[in-house]
Amino acid sequence: MQPHHGLVRTPSGLIDTLPSWYDGPVKDSILTFVNEVTAREGPSFVPPEERIAVFDNDGTLWCEQPLPVQGLFLFDRLKVLLNDRPELREKPPFSAVASHDRLQLAQLGKKGLAELFYATHTGMTTEQFSIIATRWLHTALHPQLRRPVLDCAFQPMLELLELLKRAEFTCFVVTGGGVDFVRACSHELYGIPKHQVIGTRAKTKIEVEGERFDVIKLAQLDSFDDRESKVLNIEQQIGSRPIFAFGNSDGDLAMLHYTAAGNGKRFVALLHHDDAAREYAYDRNFAISPLSQGLVEAAERGWMISMKECFAEVFTPWPRVTA
Amino acid sequence: MQPHHGLVRTPSGLIDTLPSWYDGPVKDSILTFVNEVTAREGPSFVPPEERIAVFDNDGTLWCEQPLPVQGLFLFDRLKVLLNDRPELREKPPFSAVASHDRLQLAQLGKKGLAELFYATHTGMTTEQFSIIATRWLHTALHPQLRRPVLDCAFQPMLELLELLKRAEFTCFVVTGGGVDFVRACSHELYGIPKHQVIGTRAKTKIEVEGERFDVIKLAQLDSFDDRESKVLNIEQQIGSRPIFAFGNSDGDLAMLHYTAAGNGKRFVALLHHDDAAREYAYDRNFAISPLSQGLVEAAERGWMISMKECFAEVFTPWPRVTA
Repeated sequence: MQPHHGLVRTPSGLIDTLPSWYDGPVKDSILTFVNEVTAREGPSFVPPEERIAVFDNDGTLWCEQPLPVQGLFLFDRLKVLLNDRPELREKPPFSAVASHDRLQLAQLGKKGLAELFYATHTGMTTEQFSIIATRWLHTALHPQLRRPVLDCAFQPMLELLELLKRAEFTCFVVTGGGVDFVRACSHELYGIPKHQVIGTRAKTKIEVEGERFDVIKLAQLDSFDDRESKVLNIEQQIGSRPIFAFGNSDGDLAMLHYTAAGNGKRFVALLHHDDAAREYAYDRNFAISPLSQGLVEAAERGWMISMKECFAEVFTPWPRVTA
Repeated sequence: MQPHHGLVRTPSGLIDTLPSWYDGPVKDSILTFVNEVTAREGPSFVPPEERIAVFDNDGTLWCEQPLPVQGLFLFDRLKVLLNDRPELREKPPFSAVASHDRLQLAQLGKKGLAELFYATHTGMTTEQFSIIATRWLHTALHPQLRRPVLDCAFQPMLELLELLKRAEFTCFVVTGGGVDFVRACSHELYGIPKHQVIGTRAKTKIEVEGERFDVIKLAQLDSFDDRESKVLNIEQQIGSRPIFAFGNSDGDLAMLHYTAAGNGKRFVALLHHDDAAREYAYDRNFAISPLSQGLVEAAERGWMISMKECFAEVFTPWPRVTA
């Protein structure tokens, strides 16, 4: 292996990259991979249009504990809803939220949870939803980290996205979260445009009235972008098999296997949250984003990346340094 | 209106653009629009991440007469299929193809036509289909224009795509054609990557066997990307309302209305094929891509662009000039 020392040759020259990753075999393997697939005369060259990288979002690009950020948004929106329509307070599943009944909340099940999402995320245009989500994202604080939710991205992952973009990769977020929620912040957080976000989506319909021509989000699931559905949605929206994939839970395993099974050089990684001191330590025990099958398979295949051992910094610098 | 004379100021400077468009009000309106939405201090500025342009493919970016190119591909693939499996020659709808029975072919209907498409376009991975389509695209000739099908794109439209890209637009093909067929040539023809192609698609399923992990195209329609579905698919895959839309048939009208109904400056156009001398002249009379409602609405709204009056050149130069 060539020495890298945090320097990588990309089409735009030598760049000092990944300063928030510890030097070591993982950082080396990332830089080696990028060097190899971008080396025009090399045996592993991949033309830029086939340099597709996919990233899970919650727990991969930003913190998902104690709840994914969209869960925090959901409960804040439910407060607003129950304030506007107090009659809902008596009605399940809203009564569980109104009474802060943890047991009732835990027993909501998929159907109850879906009803809470539909009541706060649908029945409006994507444009209207995006305004609500963007406003919330710019004011919300993480309940335990005590920093803005938009400052809960992992600095090493932002550097990785930037490195791949400079190396002419096209990076996609492939999230189990709501596509419109993640699209409301993907550009600001990751420099990733809306059309490079694939996620869970509701069915939609067109409403035309006079000069108005709108698309309305309906209270019906169109695709829950998790597990095998991540692969089918990648195929549908990207149309090529990725050569680079990064996830953190069992929900990402299919996408990692799909990437690994392609011909030629591949980079596949699974982030293991094992750093209770700086972030959180969890795997099997986190119901929202379980990692159990993945722990075994990622270890077997050498995909596992320990946050503790690889991240020199965890979060983006905060308070932000402004000029 | 400022004088343009084929020059437009984009973020990368002054560029001589659109040489294959006649000087006149249509060319002026394109250049004015691009200037206005990219002028950082102007009242109509649109940030790059919201500069979304959508283009129909058949009849908008390339020739669709006497059959859309994918129709030529279909019949060539059916020949191969009937050669490999002669027993199909007796069986409808294949018998109509085997016997060259024009009446029977014309009466196939949606179901029969779908069966021909499924037999030649599905039951394989996207990667396998892409190899077949790419090979065909590189050898096929247009039956009347006597030039390669990959040289049947409209030169003025290629210049328009290039202008928009330089002005930091993201351009999408939104086609009623098969998404995988158009993805097989979108980069080479238009410089548009696969993930910026939205089209008609089949349902898919995952097949896993040993180290193989594939997505197989099934003989079931998932979305026919035409009319209102173009709008819903734009919403699903792009996530923002376009500010620029270009089509040529009734199948594009919903997409044009959706674009026009947004806030701020918009550019909306419908190409009218009225040049029998250099290409084809058709509108209501072309069953595959009818223009009837669109003729009325585009005229009313000032969206109509006459090929005869606006295109100084129609096709890309051919034979190609090589160094």
